[in-house]
Amino acid sequence: MAGNWRKNVREIAPYVPGEQSKDADLIKLNANENPYPPSPKVQEVFRSFDAAALRRYPDANSTELRHTLAEHFGVGDNQVFLGNGSDDVLALCFQTFFCSDDPILFPDVTYSFYPVWCSLFRIPFRKVPLTADYRIDPQDYAVKNGGVILPNPNAPTGIGEGLEFVEVLLQNNPDSIVIIDEAYIDFGGTSCLPLLEKYENLVIVQTMSKSRSLAGMRVGYAIASPELIAALEAVKNSYNSYTMDMLTLDAATASVKDNAYFRETCARVIQTRERSAQTFREMGFTVLPSQTNFLLVTHPEKSAKELFEKLRAQKIFVRYFNQPRVDNHLRVTIGTDDEMDKLFEALRNIM
Amino acid sequence: MAGNWRKNVREIAPYVPGEQSKDADLIKLNANENPYPPSPKVQEVFRSFDAAALRRYPDANSTELRHTLAEHFGVGDNQVFLGNGSDDVLALCFQTFFCSDDPILFPDVTYSFYPVWCSLFRIPFRKVPLTADYRIDPQDYAVKNGGVILPNPNAPTGIGEGLEFVEVLLQNNPDSIVIIDEAYIDFGGTSCLPLLEKYENLVIVQTMSKSRSLAGMRVGYAIASPELIAALEAVKNSYNSYTMDMLTLDAATASVKDNAYFRETCARVIQTRERSAQTFREMGFTVLPSQTNFLLVTHPEKSAKELFEKLRAQKIFVRYFNQPRVDNHLRVTIGTDDEMDKLFEALRNIM
Repeated sequence: MAGNWRKNVREIAPYVPGEQSKDADLIKLNANENPYPPSPKVQEVFRSFDAAALRRYPDANSTELRHTLAEHFGVGDNQVFLGNGSDDVLALCFQTFFCSDDPILFPDVTYSFYPVWCSLFRIPFRKVPLTADYRIDPQDYAVKNGGVILPNPNAPTGIGEGLEFVEVLLQNNPDSIVIIDEAYIDFGGTSCLPLLEKYENLVIVQTMSKSRSLAGMRVGYAIASPELIAALEAVKNSYNSYTMDMLTLDAATASVKDNAYFRETCARVIQTRERSAQTFREMGFTVLPSQTNFLLVTHPEKSAKELFEKLRAQKIFVRYFNQPRVDNHLRVTIGTDDEMDKLFEALRNIM
Repeated sequence: MAGNWRKNVREIAPYVPGEQSKDADLIKLNANENPYPPSPKVQEVFRSFDAAALRRYPDANSTELRHTLAEHFGVGDNQVFLGNGSDDVLALCFQTFFCSDDPILFPDVTYSFYPVWCSLFRIPFRKVPLTADYRIDPQDYAVKNGGVILPNPNAPTGIGEGLEFVEVLLQNNPDSIVIIDEAYIDFGGTSCLPLLEKYENLVIVQTMSKSRSLAGMRVGYAIASPELIAALEAVKNSYNSYTMDMLTLDAATASVKDNAYFRETCARVIQTRERSAQTFREMGFTVLPSQTNFLLVTHPEKSAKELFEKLRAQKIFVRYFNQPRVDNHLRVTIGTDDEMDKLFEALRNIM
């Protein structure tokens, strides 16, 4: 049947998700995943879960998990919004908060999904260049805009900024929603949570994928004023009321309640990061200061692309970005101490 | 801080999800949930799942579940699309396939989420009245349109149509994408799967929430031509690459592989439905012919709203629609035989 139906189909350049591999030999330092398992309490949830409960729809309001997170952060239950990974939360934020005809602003070197959502939702945007030393200057965002989004710490630079930085950003933008994407905040960054009381136009987004080792489970959340959370809920409930499944809700709740394990594994990642940064420097690399679970490194004499490919041949995956300003850098996720030792051994042999 | 940021926030009438209750005494016949648990293989998945795997991102392509479903339906792996419940799949279909300026068409009495997605994505639409006997006349859809979506069997009528009906619809709409929402197909309906070979503009959407008792797990899927599935994938990967978590993928795969259990529980629901329809008729109700796991019933003398409220007072929840054409009907989900007996006993006492 040759009809003319193709005219009604949305054409969009397919975004290709990052490479995954099931090879157990692989040292996988390319996706900013956590080297440690989630809290043992998560395993207990699966062991004791009664599958018969699944015949019912889950709680569309994620009541228990919201409450647990609200208590954890010292905010109201009506200040927390749950989603299917922080990508889902961010996508809903873009739809809900960036409805201006003025361009939204984000850094030129940042999370690569931001321009993809702009394209999907037809949101005008402008990329603001990082400074020469790969930092964000909040004064660059003191111009007319339809909204601001940036990660703190930023990715893939790893550089984090303090509370004052975010406050300047907010003071410069009383007429915009400002979204701070704190995906990597738990590895030593300073959360802007204390600013929530003062700024109703601030949205903080975090994820359980990295610091809580729950990438495979899909949990992200936003924290903001009750008014902004209600707006987000309204859009979410007009899209898909039941985004959070029962197992995910229970597993995430168990994780948040096990704060000791959470702090311990984050501290281990930070420790390995500092040791690894030192080793990279000793090998002649320039290392950007990181408050995340990865390092962005570059070598004055060695081609990043070549190092990337030679490591890959030895089944060590790191991340190479074929894009301006970082195309001679490697982004290396912090693995276990043992994995990092193997990486450095391989690098020494290559160099 | 009194800024002017509110102008950038999307205003949308909040869609309120259906009522849930944790009361164990309740007889819950209001959400078209399955009275039986999912396949015992699902429970085994949870028992044996190693939580350590969750530190990794899941397979963005849902490779194994796609393949299992493709085999089950006798289609190619590239003809299956997975989503976080069929609401997620349908929302992505609306964004991907209904990009015309002409209104899309759906019945006036149908799934209440269709106009909500139109509002969210700003898709023009026109509601096409059902016939006097609550059926869909495919000739009513033989007009210029931007797309067609309808459930078969329809909800909340429960009435299913055959293959010829869908083929007439497709023949009348060579220039539109036609989505057949088969949420209730496994309870005796006729799937239009055989038409896929002939019509590249046909999209079939199904869910594991009802017939597979996995409402709490969130799994829906679309089956269509490779071209339409690729378009859907491109939009999905521009929204959220990782919608399906690891536990959900494994549980859904286990369910599809246990075909014997699936057929047995569907048969039990159908048997209880037929018995229940007979009892309703003996009590003086008019019962629409159902190929679903619910019955739409009305009584010539009794007010549906009054019956609904009196049942509710006895902790028996059925569904009442305060909307034209069905506002003197009750939608009753098929429970266990025991639950239906209690419903009929309560109804006899009320009447």
